[in-house]
Amino acid sequence: MDTLYVVVLAGGSGERFWPLSTPNHPKQFPPLLEGQSFFQRTAERAASLVGADRVLVATRRELLPIVEQQLPGFPRENCILEPVGRDTAACIGLAALAIEARQPGARMLVTPSDHHIHPPHAFEETIRQGLLLLDRVDGLVTLGIPPTGPETGYGYILAGEAVPAHPAARRCQRFTEKPDRVTAERFVADGRYYWNSGIFLWRAATLLREVERRLPEHWRCLAAVRPALGSRAEAAALDEWFPRIPKVSVDVGILEKADEVYMVPATFAWDDVGAWSALGRILPKDESGNAVVGRHTSRDTHGCVVYGTTRPIATVGLRDLVVVETAEGVLVCPKDRAQEVKELVRLMRENRS
Amino acid sequence: MDTLYVVVLAGGSGERFWPLSTPNHPKQFPPLLEGQSFFQRTAERAASLVGADRVLVATRRELLPIVEQQLPGFPRENCILEPVGRDTAACIGLAALAIEARQPGARMLVTPSDHHIHPPHAFEETIRQGLLLLDRVDGLVTLGIPPTGPETGYGYILAGEAVPAHPAARRCQRFTEKPDRVTAERFVADGRYYWNSGIFLWRAATLLREVERRLPEHWRCLAAVRPALGSRAEAAALDEWFPRIPKVSVDVGILEKADEVYMVPATFAWDDVGAWSALGRILPKDESGNAVVGRHTSRDTHGCVVYGTTRPIATVGLRDLVVVETAEGVLVCPKDRAQEVKELVRLMRENRS
Repeated sequence: MDTLYVVVLAGGSGERFWPLSTPNHPKQFPPLLEGQSFFQRTAERAASLVGADRVLVATRRELLPIVEQQLPGFPRENCILEPVGRDTAACIGLAALAIEARQPGARMLVTPSDHHIHPPHAFEETIRQGLLLLDRVDGLVTLGIPPTGPETGYGYILAGEAVPAHPAARRCQRFTEKPDRVTAERFVADGRYYWNSGIFLWRAATLLREVERRLPEHWRCLAAVRPALGSRAEAAALDEWFPRIPKVSVDVGILEKADEVYMVPATFAWDDVGAWSALGRILPKDESGNAVVGRHTSRDTHGCVVYGTTRPIATVGLRDLVVVETAEGVLVCPKDRAQEVKELVRLMRENRS
Repeated sequence: MDTLYVVVLAGGSGERFWPLSTPNHPKQFPPLLEGQSFFQRTAERAASLVGADRVLVATRRELLPIVEQQLPGFPRENCILEPVGRDTAACIGLAALAIEARQPGARMLVTPSDHHIHPPHAFEETIRQGLLLLDRVDGLVTLGIPPTGPETGYGYILAGEAVPAHPAARRCQRFTEKPDRVTAERFVADGRYYWNSGIFLWRAATLLREVERRLPEHWRCLAAVRPALGSRAEAAALDEWFPRIPKVSVDVGILEKADEVYMVPATFAWDDVGAWSALGRILPKDESGNAVVGRHTSRDTHGCVVYGTTRPIATVGLRDLVVVETAEGVLVCPKDRAQEVKELVRLMRENRS
């Protein structure tokens, strides 16, 4: 693993976990997991894989204080600081530039920092499978999650032909972003489809070659920034060029278009923690099946997600609800409608304006 | 009305409205009604009936600062301050002593301060009926509420024979405190039963005579305090004697035993606001039938009681729930189980200790 770097993506907008997460404190940062944040868990996983000095954190510049607080001693030069968010193609391209400059020929693992992954050793095993694949091919690798249901919020990968001399890898034959329910059900029944985890593995140089080929506007801006990277002029160069980059995800801008795209199936349990209800799957439960963080007193309350910060929460006669209290506000909704929190946040913003 | 005093009872324990009310801030004091508290509404009703200087407030000594804050300029000498709560017979007896000393032969109206009464002119009309009755009889008068359902938490009065030359008054034939459901249903179906409102009317001297006759222990202590009333020695005398008084309600200790007890049916709308769900009956509703105090943003939320203090509350997909946020904590429960909040408060106390 001595040429592997890990890029932890820690931007994010944070609407779906209101009132815990906010644009200035997205969901990877609150201590949801026994006092640790998803970000801290991700950085730990990364450091145990490659060593702390080869972990890079890509985030928006204004989130740097939170990163420094959550990872004491994390080297400032390992932070990729975007002046504004331009989606993943831009910041992954920037990270690839930094890594290639540091160690030409290096490989990079890109991972979101707001996912739940368990157990760590299975994650490492899957990464090893991915690295094995990179020894055979010069392409882009994504980790595929065996789907557990017809989720409509994910990207699906149709796994194509096998890769010679690799036990598990497949070529990606087609990407389908957020299918409708019927299509998702068909995909799951089909058996050849995987969820796109958003965890990627490739040589930095390979990614940069694909950026140049598929996203010329990105390439032009990244090339302009390149000479200043790591110098005092970096922030000014980013301020000038980064905002001009179009907002495109690496999935849409590159993976869906590139020729050599592969998938390694994940052998770990994965949850994208897309809404409050996910905590009901991830956290340990009390004897009534409630996932509780904070002080909770209850009668006849079952299957709920209860999250309190400073104040006690008391409940009677609830089933499968999410109840959250933070300094930002209070949220109450059924677990199966937790994805509507995004709309609520929009409504609140309208009410205020 | 020139010999009528009003005694506003403002003790109370405040468990049923957790987390808004607490023992140190019982439910008559929070601004539940368009910025006003039930206590302020009650004092207003009393003052418009008899003039502010003939309104007395009976409360626990530690609640005096709240009284003074909510009724600016309220004369200190009109406060009856119990060093400890000994239920209503004790504090009403004490108030009767004070009134009889101030104006021998005066009549007194006793009213809780945590009930909802509407409209004020109907209340005044009922009181006038009660005073008319006091012109005819030398007894104890309670206001009876025509029952709207088989409530098991109230006291019921069986109305007996009519009073000559009074259009509406009846003798109280029997009191039944908190009947079981079947009995309550029978009472309501019977048609001769009323709820006991806890609003009383009598001559101070009549009440004192009954205390002497029915509650000798009360009488002994009150008689010991009597000489000090209104003097600098009052607080010390109360400290000495009040704690010795047994805890008995005026209903159980006197009304159920006295010979001359009458009932005047109320012509006003009445709610004892016994739990959070009551706000759903009292407060105006939004277009989805929610009774809301504070900032509330919602999708598909109907028939709820939402009470927030400083923080916004956001809800999705809720039906007939109570959601409360205060500095003390957060409460979520179905409206029809709001009476269980008392048990929750007990549980919380146990969890802490």
